[in-house]
Amino acid sequence: MSELSALDETIQNLMYEVGERTKAAMTKKLQIDEKTSPHDLVTDVDKSNEQFINQRLRQLDPTAKIVSEEGFGDQVHDLAGRVWIVDPIDGTMNFIMERENFAIMLALYVDGQPTLGYILDVMKNRLYHGGPALGVWENETRLTPPLNRGIRDSLIDVSSYILMNDIHHAQTAARAARSIRVFGSAGISMTQLITGRTGAYITNLKPWDLAPGRVLCEALGLVVKPIDDHPLDVLSSNFVLVAVPAAANDIEQLIN
Amino acid sequence: MSELSALDETIQNLMYEVGERTKAAMTKKLQIDEKTSPHDLVTDVDKSNEQFINQRLRQLDPTAKIVSEEGFGDQVHDLAGRVWIVDPIDGTMNFIMERENFAIMLALYVDGQPTLGYILDVMKNRLYHGGPALGVWENETRLTPPLNRGIRDSLIDVSSYILMNDIHHAQTAARAARSIRVFGSAGISMTQLITGRTGAYITNLKPWDLAPGRVLCEALGLVVKPIDDHPLDVLSSNFVLVAVPAAANDIEQLIN
Repeated sequence: MSELSALDETIQNLMYEVGERTKAAMTKKLQIDEKTSPHDLVTDVDKSNEQFINQRLRQLDPTAKIVSEEGFGDQVHDLAGRVWIVDPIDGTMNFIMERENFAIMLALYVDGQPTLGYILDVMKNRLYHGGPALGVWENETRLTPPLNRGIRDSLIDVSSYILMNDIHHAQTAARAARSIRVFGSAGISMTQLITGRTGAYITNLKPWDLAPGRVLCEALGLVVKPIDDHPLDVLSSNFVLVAVPAAANDIEQLIN
Repeated sequence: MSELSALDETIQNLMYEVGERTKAAMTKKLQIDEKTSPHDLVTDVDKSNEQFINQRLRQLDPTAKIVSEEGFGDQVHDLAGRVWIVDPIDGTMNFIMERENFAIMLALYVDGQPTLGYILDVMKNRLYHGGPALGVWENETRLTPPLNRGIRDSLIDVSSYILMNDIHHAQTAARAARSIRVFGSAGISMTQLITGRTGAYITNLKPWDLAPGRVLCEALGLVVKPIDDHPLDVLSSNFVLVAVPAAANDIEQLIN
């Protein structure tokens, strides 16, 4: 077994372990705090998951840097070397309100290259994992690239803020699609793309929201590109289009 | 056991049986046709489910009338007597594209009164069932009324057409909520309401989309009301707001 495969197996086990911790924590009352607004919440589970994951990563990979959402990671200013990107609960609002449709996510970038990605849909017990060298898997099943359909034959997923405010003409793309979906979790949205349920996703994502899904999407031939004038930056927020190539082409023609 | 309880048990079994038939049919290639547009599809499973359900209902309740989506029911012009309302696949687009997040739905109205309602989330194996006399259940678990939260503490669910076109000022309501969701199936949206995951739902529904959820929502104290000048009509399309009372109050103040 290669070094990468062995690391991947260890991280898969870590992901399932954090998933079980999360389900156990959901039997107790959540402690909920506002971050920037009533629309941006954090719970004690986000924090304790992040501390748990980061501690494990520091044991496993002591010289790596860690970028993580809730402040227990490092100050990371460049992508040299090994960088882990951690989202301890993605879709915290769904975690609180729906108690499903949220994810735990992790990515490894090596010298800026997408290397390993993990998205655990906790309540469905579905771990999406892999990368360019290992292929992309749903639990034990290897995934093939989704059908390369145009936007008129696809569902489109748009973050509600972008949809409502028609940012970058997202409504024009949305009207062309078969129908619109809004899931409220970047991780869940990425799993819908890599399984071919949706064909395109237009959103604004923080590093920990984008990095894991980007590894898996690119490894399956999906396009991950900016929809504004800024190049993709793993360490900052990005307006992005993630789509199968045919839908991406259609959308670029529609919105430019 | 009362006559209604016995009927309810028979219908629950029918629902699970149709759910299993549906999952079996999903292992074969679907035959997909357009109805009014590429956004409005029907499959051979919609049709065969409807024929199967209607045939059973005619055996069980020979003098009742049947209103159903795909044309195998009766021409029903009034609500006198017993009327069954059948949606053989709700969220056909999700059935085709997501292969989850669709429902099979059934309702019984007696002299216009909501009496029994059934929503089967097929892929999650969750049957929501009951009515004003029997209570509302998720499989074997009785549900209690969802928390009566205002719109600012709730997720709102809005159909994409209404959201994009800001019909009846739905965007104003959406901006007040914690966040927006679009699921693409009235049945799934109704299950999110009765389990307290979302607090409000603004949509335009056909009889078979609204009738089953209305029975369950009203039995749990949720408000089901028109958002235009037309009174609710079980036999036609309705622009409706379905919400817990506090969120319904908030929304009415916001959009009127």
